Amino acid sequence: MNKIPIIALLTDFGLSDAYVGTMKGVMLAICPTAHLVDISHAVQPQNVRQAAYVLLTAFRHFPPDTIFLIVVDPGVGTAREPVAVQTNHGIFVAPDNGVLTFVLPHVKVQQTAILKNPAYRLPTASQTFHGRDIFSPAAAHLATGVPVDALGPALPALKQLPEPCLDIAPAHIHGEVLHIDHFGNIITSIGQLVWTTSDTLELDPQFGPRTSSPRTLYATCRVTIGNQMLETIRMTYGDVSPGTLTALVGSSGQLEIGMNQGNAAQALDVLIGDTVSVACEPGP
Amino acid sequence: MNKIPIIALLTDFGLSDAYVGTMKGVMLAICPTAHLVDISHAVQPQNVRQAAYVLLTAFRHFPPDTIFLIVVDPGVGTAREPVAVQTNHGIFVAPDNGVLTFVLPHVKVQQTAILKNPAYRLPTASQTFHGRDIFSPAAAHLATGVPVDALGPALPALKQLPEPCLDIAPAHIHGEVLHIDHFGNIITSIGQLVWTTSDTLELDPQFGPRTSSPRTLYATCRVTIGNQMLETIRMTYGDVSPGTLTALVGSSGQLEIGMNQGNAAQALDVLIGDTVSVACEPGP
Amino acid sequence: MNKIPIIALLTDFGLSDAYVGTMKGVMLAICPTAHLVDISHAVQPQNVRQAAYVLLTAFRHFPPDTIFLIVVDPGVGTAREPVAVQTNHGIFVAPDNGVLTFVLPHVKVQQTAILKNPAYRLPTASQTFHGRDIFSPAAAHLATGVPVDALGPALPALKQLPEPCLDIAPAHIHGEVLHIDHFGNIITSIGQLVWTTSDTLELDPQFGPRTSSPRTLYATCRVTIGNQMLETIRMTYGDVSPGTLTALVGSSGQLEIGMNQGNAAQALDVLIGDTVSVACEPGP
Repeated sequence: MNKIPIIALLTDFGLSDAYVGTMKGVMLAICPTAHLVDISHAVQPQNVRQAAYVLLTAFRHFPPDTIFLIVVDPGVGTAREPVAVQTNHGIFVAPDNGVLTFVLPHVKVQQTAILKNPAYRLPTASQTFHGRDIFSPAAAHLATGVPVDALGPALPALKQLPEPCLDIAPAHIHGEVLHIDHFGNIITSIGQLVWTTSDTLELDPQFGPRTSSPRTLYATCRVTIGNQMLETIRMTYGDVSPGTLTALVGSSGQLEIGMNQGNAAQALDVLIGDTVSVACEPGP
Repeated sequence: MNKIPIIALLTDFGLSDAYVGTMKGVMLAICPTAHLVDISHAVQPQNVRQAAYVLLTAFRHFPPDTIFLIVVDPGVGTAREPVAVQTNHGIFVAPDNGVLTFVLPHVKVQQTAILKNPAYRLPTASQTFHGRDIFSPAAAHLATGVPVDALGPALPALKQLPEPCLDIAPAHIHGEVLHIDHFGNIITSIGQLVWTTSDTLELDPQFGPRTSSPRTLYATCRVTIGNQMLETIRMTYGDVSPGTLTALVGSSGQLEIGMNQGNAAQALDVLIGDTVSVACEPGP
Repeated sequence: MNKIPIIALLTDFGLSDAYVGTMKGVMLAICPTAHLVDISHAVQPQNVRQAAYVLLTAFRHFPPDTIFLIVVDPGVGTAREPVAVQTNHGIFVAPDNGVLTFVLPHVKVQQTAILKNPAYRLPTASQTFHGRDIFSPAAAHLATGVPVDALGPALPALKQLPEPCLDIAPAHIHGEVLHIDHFGNIITSIGQLVWTTSDTLELDPQFGPRTSSPRTLYATCRVTIGNQMLETIRMTYGDVSPGTLTALVGSSGQLEIGMNQGNAAQALDVLIGDTVSVACEPGP
């Protein structure tokens, strides 16, 4: 086949050591034609839940035959299994520690393997750097066309993290802060939000129990975070003047609190896990 | 055609979120053969002028058929237009907010397009992440061979930022600090400087009004920055002993103040926008 | 030939300027098919010794025909020579300032060149950015198939850094802290350590005088660092409870001090260059 295989990397390794570069060296030695793409290497050290969220926002935008290599692995060298999970939108190579939790409801799992076959590991696997010795060789061999089931036996069930907090009642929605981005935008667990008209939103939650029909919201909902109340949900940061806070629908569909040309998380002193609430108004 | 299209990325997205990785996923889904190269993703958030300068220093060194994708976009989702600008040295895909100002005098603009054609956007464009939904698809479609004018109607005129401060008089030159790099080197608006002999420099300014003939300077010019005076313009950092400040001609031709194996910006407590002056001596 | 040439980059340029991106532009203009891979750009500014160590941990995992481009160059523009060194495991393009010291004992040098041939430099080389003007063009021309000896005359001898501290006596080993990684793991000069059984280690030093036969250690060795004593050398971080310090064999074979899900360097207030000692017990 003439296709260029894509391997997309997500780790907490940072960029100040040779860890990521070494993994790339290992993969290119096995599959010289692979196109290696960084999703991020700045997940907080050992923060599996943050990695799970970052992966959710990115994976759909990659081609469906992408191999995702995720190494956020506080249990390296212990009993957690290294796995490969083939789905209808990508093959995920990762430790079985819940990092795939938020992606799984959005894909169909077709096959799994525990990465036990020594033919697809480096000859001497360390106990502290499975990213180099187990995960990267597996991803690279998959990129050369090795099928998932050649890597090892199937896994009975994948580990799941608890869902983010999301409580939807007739007069309110409570969620939590899921991520704070590079700009200080505060991304919450309240989504998937879609504008239907300029003052009406539909909420079809990405987390929590799936409901049969989407919930209708109005832009005039009041959003409370920290000790701040925001009167309206807007379209974009620039809908308010520079330095002003606003609630809006973020690029992954979640309710987000941002500041036009400023840093909302610093202004509000908000942390991941803090509560955010929406008081729902009856529509016009 | 058998060529590998190059897309060079410059953003203020940082590397801690999936934003850059997601843009790459979008582009590879459209143009799997594209070679994606990072210029930088660490432009200060929303600092269009800094991005314009960083782009100036980099673009000439890329092949002339490179597609430059620049997303520093404080006005995302507002009236500013997303554009593509074809020149004799690259196609620039960017918001029309002045980020191309410093490049434009060095290229010939051949064609422009406002990125309005929905065929070359993602199906549902968000209001907050045009990097993913509008700019990346445009760059990737251009990489597959789509012509610029297919992307939308031409733009009457591109927005321009004010030129950096540069005042050239017989006995002095006043400029400003344009950029402080990773090493603490202070890069000024005074350039294009070229050594003609070891004590004679020609100044052919990159900013401000173009003059008909270059100005001759001598290495014995006195350079003043903060409350520091430097007696000579030198060839390189290592021409002074470690820990010593020196004025020199930087790698992009601008007058630069550096410290051998040290951080000049910290030592001088200088900020972007501060004044730098050269007192011009009559030559020998 | 149909192979994709790999150029692996290691610099102290950081990612906030266009320096690395510009080097990539230069290389792709010369060798459009090159696969450019980042090892790291976050070596401490001008820290040649740290770069030498990072290179040692990475280089073996790349394919043996990789071109390594290393630009950590405090002497840029001074008398130190820019060189290319062909070995049986890669071609190294770097300033001759000792940055290859730790790699050289592990490879066979086949040819060297001082990068003097103007045909393989940019037309006008600056005095402050040889990464762009001399090193990148050399690496890219090598990637197109230009032989090392075309780049310039051979170099009589490569500069060497002093070896790291490593003192091996019957009842103790003294070493030093060589590197502190992104997670706060403390990597020492004591290695190459290999587990032979779960309580027996062999030490075949990577630094210092090569001995004829490896030294046998036992997991019950006591490790002293700062004012902390650790009773055992373990297999991995997860062998102790979260928040607990442990000595272990790191991923490059060196003795390492880490903390399960924590930052050992912060907890111990240790710096690069600090002493680490192992008190050797007689075996069972």
